[in-house]
Amino acid sequence: MPSRPLPTPLYQVIPITDPEDPRIEPYREVRERDLVGRDGLFIAEGAVVIRSLVQSPRYRPRSLLIADKRLAALEPMLTALPANTPVYTATQAVLDRIAGFPLHRGILAVGEKTAVPTVANLLDACGPVARVVMLFGIGNHDNMGGIFRNAAAFGADAVILDPGCCDPLYRKAIRVSVGATLLVPTARLAPDDDPLALLDRFGFEAVALSPAGAETLAALSPPRRAALLFGSEGPGLPPALLARARGVRIPMAGGFDSLNVATTSGIVLHHIASGQAS
Amino acid sequence: MPSRPLPTPLYQVIPITDPEDPRIEPYREVRERDLVGRDGLFIAEGAVVIRSLVQSPRYRPRSLLIADKRLAALEPMLTALPANTPVYTATQAVLDRIAGFPLHRGILAVGEKTAVPTVANLLDACGPVARVVMLFGIGNHDNMGGIFRNAAAFGADAVILDPGCCDPLYRKAIRVSVGATLLVPTARLAPDDDPLALLDRFGFEAVALSPAGAETLAALSPPRRAALLFGSEGPGLPPALLARARGVRIPMAGGFDSLNVATTSGIVLHHIASGQAS
Repeated sequence: MPSRPLPTPLYQVIPITDPEDPRIEPYREVRERDLVGRDGLFIAEGAVVIRSLVQSPRYRPRSLLIADKRLAALEPMLTALPANTPVYTATQAVLDRIAGFPLHRGILAVGEKTAVPTVANLLDACGPVARVVMLFGIGNHDNMGGIFRNAAAFGADAVILDPGCCDPLYRKAIRVSVGATLLVPTARLAPDDDPLALLDRFGFEAVALSPAGAETLAALSPPRRAALLFGSEGPGLPPALLARARGVRIPMAGGFDSLNVATTSGIVLHHIASGQAS
Repeated sequence: MPSRPLPTPLYQVIPITDPEDPRIEPYREVRERDLVGRDGLFIAEGAVVIRSLVQSPRYRPRSLLIADKRLAALEPMLTALPANTPVYTATQAVLDRIAGFPLHRGILAVGEKTAVPTVANLLDACGPVARVVMLFGIGNHDNMGGIFRNAAAFGADAVILDPGCCDPLYRKAIRVSVGATLLVPTARLAPDDDPLALLDRFGFEAVALSPAGAETLAALSPPRRAALLFGSEGPGLPPALLARARGVRIPMAGGFDSLNVATTSGIVLHHIASGQAS
Protein backbone atom coordinates (compact mmCIF):
# COMPACT_ATOMS: atom_id res chain seq x y z
CA MET A 1 0.00 0.00 0.00
CA PRO A 2 1.60 3.30 -1.02
CA SER A 3 2.20 5.67 1.88
CA ARG A 4 0.50 9.04 1.59
CA PRO A 5 3.01 11.90 1.72
CA LEU A 6 2.69 13.95 4.91
CA PRO A 7 1.67 17.58 4.31
CA THR A 8 4.59 19.94 4.74
CA PRO A 9 3.99 22.14 7.77
CA LEU A 10 4.10 25.83 6.92
CA TYR A 11 5.45 26.74 10.32
CA GLN A 12 9.02 25.99 11.35
CA VAL A 13 9.72 24.00 14.51
CA ILE A 14 12.94 25.23 16.10
CA PRO A 15 14.06 23.39 19.26
CA ILE A 16 15.65 25.60 21.93
CA THR A 17 17.91 23.98 24.52
CA ASP A 18 19.73 27.03 25.91
CA PRO A 19 17.58 29.50 27.90
CA GLU A 20 20.03 32.20 26.81
CA ASP A 21 19.47 31.54 23.10
CA PRO A 22 19.16 35.00 21.50
CA ARG A 23 16.31 33.87 19.25
CA ILE A 24 13.90 33.65 22.17
CA GLU A 25 14.99 36.99 23.67
CA PRO A 26 11.46 38.55 23.51
CA TYR A 27 10.17 35.75 25.77
CA ARG A 28 12.72 36.25 28.54
CA GLU A 29 11.39 37.24 31.98
CA VAL A 30 7.97 38.08 30.58
CA ARG A 31 6.64 39.21 33.95
CA GLU A 32 9.29 41.89 34.21
CA ARG A 33 8.65 43.63 30.95
CA ASP A 34 5.87 45.08 28.94
CA LEU A 35 6.57 44.67 25.27
CA VAL A 36 3.92 47.14 24.22
CA GLY A 37 5.52 50.22 22.80
CA ARG A 38 8.53 48.31 21.59
CA ASP A 39 7.69 48.37 17.88
CA GLY A 40 4.11 47.42 18.72
CA LEU A 41 5.02 43.93 19.93
CA PHE A 42 3.17 42.17 22.74
CA ILE A 43 3.13 38.82 24.58
CA ALA A 44 0.12 36.49 24.47
CA GLU A 45 -0.12 33.37 26.63
CA GLY A 46 -2.27 30.24 26.63
CA ALA A 47 -3.89 28.30 23.82
CA VAL A 48 -7.26 30.12 23.92
CA VAL A 49 -5.66 33.56 23.69
CA ILE A 50 -3.19 32.52 21.00
CA ARG A 51 -6.03 31.04 18.95
CA SER A 52 -7.59 34.54 19.00
CA LEU A 53 -4.25 35.95 17.88
CA VAL A 54 -4.09 33.51 14.97
CA GLN A 55 -7.69 34.32 13.95
CA SER A 56 -7.40 38.08 14.31
CA PRO A 57 -7.43 40.20 11.16
CA ARG A 58 -5.60 43.01 13.00
CA TYR A 59 -2.79 41.14 14.74
CA ARG A 60 -0.58 38.19 13.93
CA PRO A 61 1.89 36.00 15.77
CA ARG A 62 5.51 36.79 14.97
CA SER A 63 6.64 33.58 16.68
CA LEU A 64 5.51 31.02 19.28
CA LEU A 65 7.28 29.32 22.17
CA ILE A 66 5.81 25.99 23.23
CA ALA A 67 6.57 23.25 25.76
CA ASP A 68 7.59 20.34 23.54
CA LYS A 69 5.20 17.96 25.31
CA ARG A 70 2.28 20.16 24.14
CA LEU A 71 3.33 20.34 20.49
CA ALA A 72 1.18 17.43 19.26
CA ALA A 73 -2.01 18.67 20.98
CA LEU A 74 -1.55 22.18 19.55
CA GLU A 75 -0.98 20.93 15.99
CA PRO A 76 -4.44 21.95 14.67
CA MET A 77 -3.83 25.57 15.69
CA LEU A 78 -0.29 25.58 14.34
CA THR A 79 -1.45 24.61 10.86
CA ALA A 80 -3.37 27.89 10.75
CA LEU A 81 -0.21 29.95 11.34
CA PRO A 82 1.11 32.22 8.59
CA ALA A 83 3.80 30.52 6.48
CA ASN A 84 7.27 30.34 8.01
CA THR A 85 6.18 31.44 11.48
CA PRO A 86 8.92 30.21 13.84
CA VAL A 87 7.60 27.82 16.50
CA TYR A 88 10.25 27.50 19.19
CA THR A 89 9.99 24.44 21.39
CA ALA A 90 11.68 23.67 24.68
CA THR A 91 11.36 21.32 27.62
CA GLN A 92 9.14 22.58 30.45
CA ALA A 93 12.27 23.21 32.56
CA VAL A 94 13.93 25.37 29.88
CA LEU A 95 10.60 27.13 29.23
CA ASP A 96 10.22 28.03 32.90
CA ARG A 97 13.76 29.42 32.96
CA ILE A 98 13.12 31.53 29.86
CA ALA A 99 9.80 32.92 31.10
CA GLY A 100 11.09 33.43 34.63
CA PHE A 101 8.18 31.60 36.31
CA PRO A 102 6.46 28.19 36.05
CA LEU A 103 4.66 28.50 32.72
CA HIS A 104 1.84 26.02 33.32
CA ARG A 105 0.02 27.05 30.16
CA GLY A 106 3.03 25.90 28.17
CA ILE A 107 2.55 28.29 25.27
CA LEU A 108 3.50 31.90 24.59
CA ALA A 109 3.48 34.01 21.45
CA VAL A 110 4.99 37.32 20.45
CA GLY A 111 2.34 39.20 18.52
CA GLU A 112 2.39 42.29 16.36
CA LYS A 113 -0.15 44.65 14.83
CA THR A 114 -0.95 44.32 11.14
CA ALA A 115 -3.50 47.13 10.91
CA VAL A 116 -4.03 50.28 12.97
CA PRO A 117 -7.51 51.68 12.28
CA THR A 118 -8.49 55.18 13.37
CA VAL A 119 -11.55 55.89 15.51
CA ALA A 120 -13.23 57.36 12.42
CA ASN A 121 -12.46 54.15 10.46
CA LEU A 122 -14.15 52.03 13.12
CA LEU A 123 -17.23 54.24 13.52
CA ASP A 124 -17.62 54.48 9.77
CA ALA A 125 -17.48 50.68 9.39
CA CYS A 126 -20.39 50.09 11.79
CA GLY A 127 -23.82 49.01 10.56
CA PRO A 128 -27.09 50.93 11.11
CA VAL A 129 -27.57 49.16 14.47
CA ALA A 130 -24.31 49.36 16.38
CA ARG A 131 -22.86 49.75 19.81
CA VAL A 132 -19.38 50.92 20.61
CA VAL A 133 -17.77 51.15 24.03
CA MET A 134 -15.79 54.33 24.73
CA LEU A 135 -13.44 54.38 27.71
CA PHE A 136 -11.98 57.32 29.61
CA GLY A 137 -9.02 56.94 31.96
CA ILE A 138 -9.29 53.19 32.48
CA GLY A 139 -5.81 52.48 33.84
CA ASN A 140 -6.30 49.07 35.44
CA HIS A 141 -5.38 46.10 33.25
CA ASP A 142 -7.89 43.77 34.92
CA ASN A 143 -10.71 46.20 34.18
CA MET A 144 -9.48 46.78 30.63
CA GLY A 145 -9.37 43.04 29.97
CA GLY A 146 -12.78 42.52 31.59
CA ILE A 147 -14.39 45.25 29.48
CA PHE A 148 -13.03 43.74 26.25
CA ARG A 149 -14.26 40.31 27.33
CA ASN A 150 -17.76 41.73 27.81
CA ALA A 151 -17.55 43.63 24.52
CA ALA A 152 -16.78 40.36 22.73
CA ALA A 153 -19.44 38.39 24.63
CA PHE A 154 -22.18 40.87 23.67
CA GLY A 155 -20.95 41.61 20.17
CA ALA A 156 -19.90 45.25 20.59
CA ASP A 157 -18.59 46.68 17.33
CA ALA A 158 -15.56 48.43 18.81
CA VAL A 159 -13.85 49.61 21.96
CA ILE A 160 -12.52 53.16 21.70
CA LEU A 161 -9.93 54.43 24.20
CA ASP A 162 -9.13 57.95 25.31
CA PRO A 163 -5.46 58.91 25.66
CA GLY A 164 -5.65 58.22 29.43
CA CYS A 165 -6.44 54.51 29.08
CA CYS A 166 -3.86 51.78 29.57
CA ASP A 167 -2.83 49.55 26.69
CA PRO A 168 -5.18 46.61 26.08
CA LEU A 169 -2.21 44.70 24.66
CA TYR A 170 -0.51 44.53 28.03
CA ARG A 171 -0.05 40.83 28.85
CA LYS A 172 -2.41 40.79 31.81
CA ALA A 173 -5.16 42.67 29.97
CA ILE A 174 -4.98 40.17 27.10
CA ARG A 175 -5.14 37.25 29.54
CA VAL A 176 -8.08 38.62 31.56
CA SER A 177 -9.93 39.34 28.31
CA VAL A 178 -9.50 35.66 27.30
CA GLY A 179 -8.14 36.98 24.01
CA ALA A 180 -10.94 39.47 23.35
CA THR A 181 -8.49 42.41 23.18
CA LEU A 182 -7.17 40.70 20.03
CA LEU A 183 -10.63 40.22 18.51
CA VAL A 184 -12.70 43.35 19.20
CA PRO A 185 -11.76 46.25 16.89
CA THR A 186 -10.14 49.04 18.88
CA ALA A 187 -8.63 52.48 18.31
CA ARG A 188 -7.42 55.35 20.44
CA LEU A 189 -8.60 58.96 20.41
CA ALA A 190 -5.98 61.63 19.77
CA PRO A 191 -5.44 64.21 22.56
CA ASP A 192 -7.13 66.93 20.49
CA ASP A 193 -10.09 64.82 19.32
CA ASP A 194 -13.55 65.90 20.49
CA PRO A 195 -15.07 62.48 21.23
CA LEU A 196 -18.69 63.66 21.17
CA ALA A 197 -18.27 65.59 17.90
CA LEU A 198 -16.73 62.48 16.36
CA LEU A 199 -19.61 60.29 17.56
CA ASP A 200 -22.12 62.80 16.28
CA ARG A 201 -20.47 62.91 12.88
CA PHE A 202 -21.13 59.18 12.45
CA GLY A 203 -24.64 59.26 13.89
CA PHE A 204 -23.82 57.72 17.28
CA GLU A 205 -25.70 58.83 20.38
CA ALA A 206 -23.45 59.10 23.46
CA VAL A 207 -24.82 57.31 26.54
CA ALA A 208 -22.71 58.23 29.57
CA LEU A 209 -22.78 55.87 32.55
CA SER A 210 -22.70 57.86 35.76
CA PRO A 211 -24.27 57.68 39.24
CA ALA A 212 -25.60 61.18 38.47
CA GLY A 213 -27.37 60.10 35.25
CA ALA A 214 -30.97 61.32 34.87
CA GLU A 215 -32.29 58.05 33.35
CA THR A 216 -31.99 54.54 34.73
CA LEU A 217 -30.42 51.85 32.60
CA ALA A 218 -33.49 49.61 32.95
CA ALA A 219 -35.65 52.32 31.37
CA LEU A 220 -33.19 53.06 28.58
CA SER A 221 -34.42 52.31 25.10
CA PRO A 222 -31.13 51.99 23.28
CA PRO A 223 -30.45 54.26 20.31
CA ARG A 224 -29.76 52.42 17.05
CA ARG A 225 -26.18 53.59 17.01
CA ALA A 226 -25.12 53.75 20.65
CA ALA A 227 -21.78 54.80 22.11
CA LEU A 228 -21.50 53.66 25.73
CA LEU A 229 -19.17 55.87 27.75
CA PHE A 230 -17.42 54.58 30.88
CA GLY A 231 -14.96 56.35 33.19
CA SER A 232 -12.61 54.93 35.80
CA GLU A 233 -14.03 53.92 39.17
CA GLY A 234 -12.74 56.79 41.23
CA PRO A 235 -13.09 59.99 39.20
CA GLY A 236 -15.70 58.74 36.72
CA LEU A 237 -16.30 60.48 33.40
CA PRO A 238 -14.99 64.02 32.83
CA PRO A 239 -17.69 66.56 33.86
CA ALA A 240 -17.38 68.45 30.55
CA LEU A 241 -18.30 65.26 28.75
CA LEU A 242 -21.12 64.32 31.13
CA ALA A 243 -22.69 67.72 30.59
CA ARG A 244 -23.05 67.06 26.86
CA ALA A 245 -24.08 63.36 26.86
CA ARG A 246 -27.21 61.42 27.81
CA GLY A 247 -26.61 60.42 31.42
CA VAL A 248 -27.69 56.95 32.52
CA ARG A 249 -27.34 55.45 36.00
CA ILE A 250 -27.62 51.99 37.50
CA PRO A 251 -29.62 52.29 40.72
CA MET A 252 -27.98 50.58 43.69
CA ALA A 253 -28.97 49.50 47.16
CA GLY A 254 -28.63 52.12 49.87
CA GLY A 255 -25.24 52.59 51.43
CA PHE A 256 -23.17 50.64 48.91
CA ASP A 257 -22.92 52.80 45.83
CA SER A 258 -20.09 50.93 44.17
CA LEU A 259 -19.86 48.76 41.07
CA ASN A 260 -16.72 47.63 39.30
CA VAL A 261 -16.40 49.31 35.89
CA ALA A 262 -15.95 46.03 33.99
CA THR A 263 -19.06 44.61 35.68
CA THR A 264 -20.90 47.82 34.80
CA SER A 265 -19.94 47.40 31.15
CA GLY A 266 -21.33 43.85 31.22
CA ILE A 267 -24.62 45.01 32.73
CA VAL A 268 -24.99 47.79 30.17
CA LEU A 269 -24.02 45.67 27.16
CA HIS A 270 -26.40 42.91 28.25
CA HIS A 271 -29.23 45.43 28.58
CA ILE A 272 -28.56 46.86 25.13
CA ALA A 273 -28.15 43.44 23.51
CA SER A 274 -31.41 42.21 25.09
CA GLY A 275 -33.28 45.35 24.01
CA GLN A 276 -32.11 45.12 20.42
CA ALA A 277 -32.85 41.41 20.24
CA SER A 278 -36.44 41.73 21.41
CA MET B 1 -12.06 80.97 79.15
CA PRO B 2 -12.40 77.48 80.63
CA SER B 3 -11.02 74.75 78.44
CA ARG B 4 -13.45 72.04 77.46
CA PRO B 5 -12.29 68.62 78.60
CA LEU B 6 -11.34 66.38 75.66
CA PRO B 7 -13.54 63.28 75.32
CA THR B 8 -11.73 60.14 76.46
CA PRO B 9 -11.18 57.88 73.46
CA LEU B 10 -12.59 54.40 73.99
CA TYR B 11 -9.90 52.85 71.86
CA GLN B 12 -6.32 52.53 73.04
CA VAL B 13 -3.48 53.99 70.98
CA ILE B 14 -0.38 51.82 71.35
CA PRO B 15 2.73 53.02 69.50
CA ILE B 16 4.89 50.25 68.01
CA THR B 17 8.53 50.98 67.23
CA ASP B 18 9.93 47.46 66.87
CA PRO B 19 8.68 45.48 63.84
CA GLU B 20 9.33 42.32 65.88
CA ASP B 21 6.99 43.43 68.69
CA PRO B 22 4.94 40.31 69.57
CA ARG B 23 1.75 42.36 69.96
CA ILE B 24 1.52 42.94 66.22
CA GLU B 25 2.33 39.33 65.31
CA PRO B 26 -0.96 38.75 63.38
CA TYR B 27 0.03 41.60 61.01
CA ARG B 28 3.43 40.20 60.10
CA GLU B 29 4.04 39.32 56.43
CA VAL B 30 0.34 39.53 55.60
CA ARG B 31 0.87 38.49 51.98
CA GLU B 32 2.42 35.21 53.02
CA ARG B 33 -0.33 33.99 55.23
CA ASP B 34 -4.01 33.47 55.24
CA LEU B 35 -5.41 34.04 58.68
CA VAL B 36 -8.73 32.43 57.91
CA GLY B 37 -9.10 29.18 59.76
CA ARG B 38 -6.91 30.33 62.59
CA ASP B 39 -9.63 30.81 65.17
CA GLY B 40 -11.76 32.58 62.55
CA LEU B 41 -9.44 35.60 62.35
CA PHE B 42 -8.87 37.53 59.12
CA ILE B 43 -7.00 40.59 57.82
CA ALA B 44 -8.82 43.63 56.44
CA GLU B 45 -7.00 46.51 54.74
CA GLY B 46 -7.85 50.06 53.79
CA ALA B 47 -10.19 52.61 55.37
CA VAL B 48 -13.27 51.74 53.27
CA VAL B 49 -13.04 48.03 54.08
CA ILE B 50 -12.33 48.61 57.76
CA ARG B 51 -15.31 50.96 57.96
CA SER B 52 -17.42 47.99 56.80
CA LEU B 53 -15.79 45.85 59.47
CA VAL B 54 -16.65 48.40 62.16
CA GLN B 55 -20.27 48.65 60.93
CA SER B 56 -20.82 44.92 60.49
CA PRO B 57 -23.14 43.15 62.92
CA ARG B 58 -21.41 39.82 62.21
CA TYR B 59 -17.74 40.76 62.48
CA ARG B 60 -15.67 43.07 64.63
CA PRO B 61 -12.12 44.37 64.65
CA ARG B 62 -9.93 42.73 67.28
CA SER B 63 -7.24 45.37 66.72
CA LEU B 64 -6.03 47.92 64.15
CA LEU B 65 -2.57 48.83 62.86
CA ILE B 66 -2.27 52.34 61.42
CA ALA B 67 0.47 54.55 59.97
CA ASP B 68 0.81 57.28 62.61
CA LYS B 69 0.53 60.03 59.98
CA ARG B 70 -2.98 58.80 59.14
CA LEU B 71 -4.25 58.66 62.73
CA ALA B 72 -5.85 62.11 62.75
CA ALA B 73 -7.73 61.60 59.49
CA LEU B 74 -9.08 58.24 60.65
CA GLU B 75 -10.27 59.61 64.01
CA PRO B 76 -14.01 59.65 63.09
CA MET B 77 -13.92 55.93 62.31
CA LEU B 78 -11.90 55.10 65.40
CA THR B 79 -14.47 56.64 67.71
CA ALA B 80 -16.93 53.99 66.47
CA LEU B 81 -14.66 51.14 67.60
CA PRO B 82 -15.73 48.85 70.44
CA ALA B 83 -14.34 49.98 73.81
CA ASN B 84 -10.71 49.11 74.49
CA THR B 85 -9.93 48.03 70.93
CA PRO B 86 -6.14 48.27 70.60
CA VAL B 87 -5.07 50.69 67.85
CA TYR B 88 -1.39 50.06 67.13
CA THR B 89 0.43 52.89 65.40
CA ALA B 90 3.78 52.89 63.67
CA THR B 91 5.79 54.99 61.25
CA GLN B 92 5.28 54.13 57.58
CA ALA B 93 8.75 52.52 57.52
CA VAL B 94 7.99 50.24 60.49
CA LEU B 95 4.55 49.47 59.07
CA ASP B 96 6.03 48.39 55.72
CA ARG B 97 8.52 46.13 57.54
CA ILE B 98 5.71 44.52 59.58
CA ALA B 99 3.44 43.95 56.60
CA GLY B 100 6.26 42.83 54.36
CA PHE B 101 5.40 45.19 51.50
CA PRO B 102 4.79 48.94 51.02
CA LEU B 103 1.46 49.40 52.75
CA HIS B 104 0.21 52.46 50.87
CA ARG B 105 -3.25 52.24 52.38
CA GLY B 106 -1.66 52.71 55.80
CA ILE B 107 -4.30 50.80 57.75
CA LEU B 108 -4.88 47.15 58.57
CA ALA B 109 -7.19 45.39 60.99
CA VAL B 110 -7.43 41.90 62.40
CA GLY B 111 -11.08 40.94 62.39
CA GLU B 112 -13.06 38.14 63.96
CA LYS B 113 -16.53 36.68 63.61
CA THR B 114 -19.13 37.49 66.23
CA ALA B 115 -22.00 35.50 64.78
CA VAL B 116 -22.10 32.43 62.54
CA PRO B 117 -25.59 32.05 61.06
CA THR B 118 -26.67 28.83 59.33
CA VAL B 119 -28.07 28.77 55.81
CA ALA B 120 -31.50 28.06 57.29
CA ASN B 121 -31.16 31.09 59.60
CA LEU B 122 -30.46 33.34 56.62
CA LEU B 123 -33.22 31.98 54.40
CA ASP B 124 -35.70 32.16 57.25
CA ALA B 125 -34.81 35.81 57.94
CA CYS B 126 -35.61 36.95 54.38
CA GLY B 127 -38.71 38.98 53.56
CA PRO B 128 -41.47 37.93 51.13
CA VAL B 129 -39.54 39.46 48.22
CA ALA B 130 -35.97 38.29 48.47
CA ARG B 131 -33.00 37.25 46.41
CA VAL B 132 -30.10 35.15 47.60
CA VAL B 133 -27.00 34.24 45.67
CA MET B 134 -25.86 30.60 45.93
CA LEU B 135 -22.37 29.70 44.78
CA PHE B 136 -20.92 26.33 43.79
CA GLY B 137 -17.18 25.73 43.53
CA ILE B 138 -16.12 29.38 43.25
CA GLY B 139 -12.45 29.02 44.12
CA ASN B 140 -11.06 32.31 42.80
CA HIS B 141 -10.77 35.11 45.37
CA ASP B 142 -11.22 37.86 42.77
CA ASN B 143 -14.47 36.32 41.61
CA MET B 144 -15.65 35.73 45.18
CA GLY B 145 -14.96 39.36 46.08
CA GLY B 146 -16.59 40.61 42.89
CA ILE B 147 -19.75 38.58 43.51
CA PHE B 148 -20.10 39.94 47.06
CA ARG B 149 -19.57 43.47 45.75
CA ASN B 150 -22.43 42.98 43.29
CA ALA B 151 -24.60 41.37 45.97
CA ALA B 152 -24.13 44.46 48.14
CA ALA B 153 -24.67 46.89 45.26
CA PHE B 154 -27.98 45.29 44.30
CA GLY B 155 -29.17 44.56 47.81
CA ALA B 156 -29.05 40.76 47.78
CA ASP B 157 -30.21 39.30 51.09
CA ALA B 158 -27.47 36.70 51.44
CA VAL B 159 -24.65 34.87 49.68
CA ILE B 160 -24.67 31.12 50.35
CA LEU B 161 -21.58 29.03 49.64
CA ASP B 162 -21.23 25.34 48.89
CA PRO B 163 -18.39 23.43 50.57
CA GLY B 164 -16.26 23.83 47.42
CA CYS B 165 -16.14 27.64 47.55
CA CYS B 166 -13.11 29.56 48.80
CA ASP B 167 -13.32 31.66 51.93
CA PRO B 168 -14.75 35.16 51.35
CA LEU B 169 -12.68 36.36 54.33
CA TYR B 170 -9.44 35.78 52.52
CA ARG B 171 -7.64 39.14 52.38
CA LYS B 172 -7.84 39.56 48.61
CA ALA B 173 -11.53 38.63 48.45
CA ILE B 174 -12.34 41.21 51.12
CA ARG B 175 -10.34 43.86 49.26
CA VAL B 176 -11.88 43.14 45.84
CA SER B 177 -15.35 43.21 47.43
CA VAL B 178 -14.62 46.72 48.78
CA GLY B 179 -15.71 45.36 52.17
CA ALA B 180 -18.93 43.75 50.96
CA THR B 181 -17.87 40.31 52.22
CA LEU B 182 -18.14 41.86 55.71
CA LEU B 183 -21.59 43.34 55.07
CA VAL B 184 -23.66 40.83 53.09
CA PRO B 185 -24.95 37.98 55.30
CA THR B 186 -23.30 34.70 54.36
CA ALA B 187 -23.32 31.05 55.39
CA ARG B 188 -21.92 27.80 54.07
CA LEU B 189 -23.82 24.64 53.15
CA ALA B 190 -22.80 21.43 54.93
CA PRO B 191 -21.50 18.60 52.71
CA ASP B 192 -24.68 16.59 53.27
CA ASP B 193 -27.13 19.49 52.75
CA ASP B 194 -29.46 19.24 49.77
CA PRO B 195 -29.37 22.86 48.57
CA LEU B 196 -32.55 22.66 46.51
CA ALA B 197 -34.55 20.99 49.28
CA LEU B 198 -33.38 23.69 51.67
CA LEU B 199 -34.42 26.45 49.26
CA ASP B 200 -37.76 24.79 48.69
CA ARG B 201 -38.40 24.53 52.42
CA PHE B 202 -38.18 28.31 52.70
CA GLY B 203 -40.16 29.03 49.53
CA PHE B 204 -37.24 30.03 47.32
CA GLU B 205 -37.26 29.20 43.62
CA ALA B 206 -33.85 28.10 42.32
CA VAL B 207 -32.74 29.92 39.16
CA ALA B 208 -29.63 28.25 37.75
CA LEU B 209 -27.41 30.29 35.44
CA SER B 210 -26.07 28.09 32.68
CA PRO B 211 -25.30 28.38 28.95
CA ALA B 212 -27.69 25.43 28.54
CA GLY B 213 -30.60 27.19 30.29
CA ALA B 214 -33.96 26.98 28.51
CA GLU B 215 -35.01 30.58 29.27
CA THR B 216 -33.09 33.78 28.57
CA LEU B 217 -32.34 36.13 31.42
CA ALA B 218 -33.98 39.06 29.62
CA ALA B 219 -37.27 37.14 29.49
CA LEU B 220 -37.08 36.02 33.12
CA SER B 221 -39.78 37.35 35.35
CA PRO B 222 -38.14 36.96 38.73
CA PRO B 223 -39.86 34.84 41.38
CA ARG B 224 -40.68 36.68 44.60
CA ARG B 225 -38.18 34.64 46.55
CA ALA B 226 -35.34 33.92 44.13
CA ALA B 227 -32.17 31.92 44.70
CA LEU B 228 -29.64 32.64 41.96
CA LEU B 229 -27.24 29.76 41.43
CA PHE B 230 -23.79 30.26 39.91
CA GLY B 231 -21.02 27.74 39.24
CA SER B 232 -17.35 28.29 38.50
CA GLU B 233 -16.31 29.36 35.01
CA GLY B 234 -14.89 26.08 33.80
CA PRO B 235 -17.13 23.26 35.03
CA GLY B 236 -20.25 25.35 35.72
CA LEU B 237 -23.02 24.10 37.99
CA PRO B 238 -23.24 20.39 38.92
CA PRO B 239 -25.45 18.58 36.34
CA ALA B 240 -27.54 16.94 39.09
CA LEU B 241 -28.44 20.40 40.33
CA LEU B 242 -29.09 21.84 36.86
CA ALA B 243 -31.52 19.02 36.17
CA ARG B 244 -33.70 20.07 39.11
CA ALA B 245 -33.55 23.90 38.82
CA ARG B 246 -35.00 26.48 36.43
CA GLY B 247 -32.24 27.00 33.87
CA VAL B 248 -31.57 30.53 32.64
CA ARG B 249 -28.96 31.58 30.07
CA ILE B 250 -27.43 34.87 28.96
CA PRO B 251 -27.27 34.85 25.14
CA MET B 252 -23.89 35.82 23.78
CA ALA B 253 -22.45 36.84 20.44
CA GLY B 254 -21.34 34.01 18.14
CA GLY B 255 -17.92 32.56 18.72
CA PHE B 256 -17.20 34.10 22.11
CA ASP B 257 -19.28 32.21 24.62
CA SER B 258 -17.51 33.41 27.73
CA LEU B 259 -18.49 35.67 30.61
CA ASN B 260 -16.72 36.09 33.91
CA VAL B 261 -18.81 34.66 36.76
CA ALA B 262 -18.66 37.86 38.84
CA THR B 263 -19.80 39.90 35.83
CA THR B 264 -22.57 37.37 35.28
CA SER B 265 -23.76 37.82 38.85
CA GLY B 266 -23.88 41.59 38.32
CA ILE B 267 -25.93 41.21 35.13
CA VAL B 268 -28.38 38.84 36.81
CA LEU B 269 -28.74 40.87 40.01
CA HIS B 270 -29.30 44.05 38.00
CA HIS B 271 -31.99 42.34 35.94
CA ILE B 272 -33.77 41.04 39.04
CA ALA B 273 -33.47 44.37 40.88
CA SER B 274 -34.84 46.27 37.86
CA GLY B 275 -37.70 43.83 37.43
CA GLN B 276 -38.76 44.02 41.05
CA ALA B 277 -38.51 47.79 41.08
CA SER B 278 -40.78 48.29 38.07
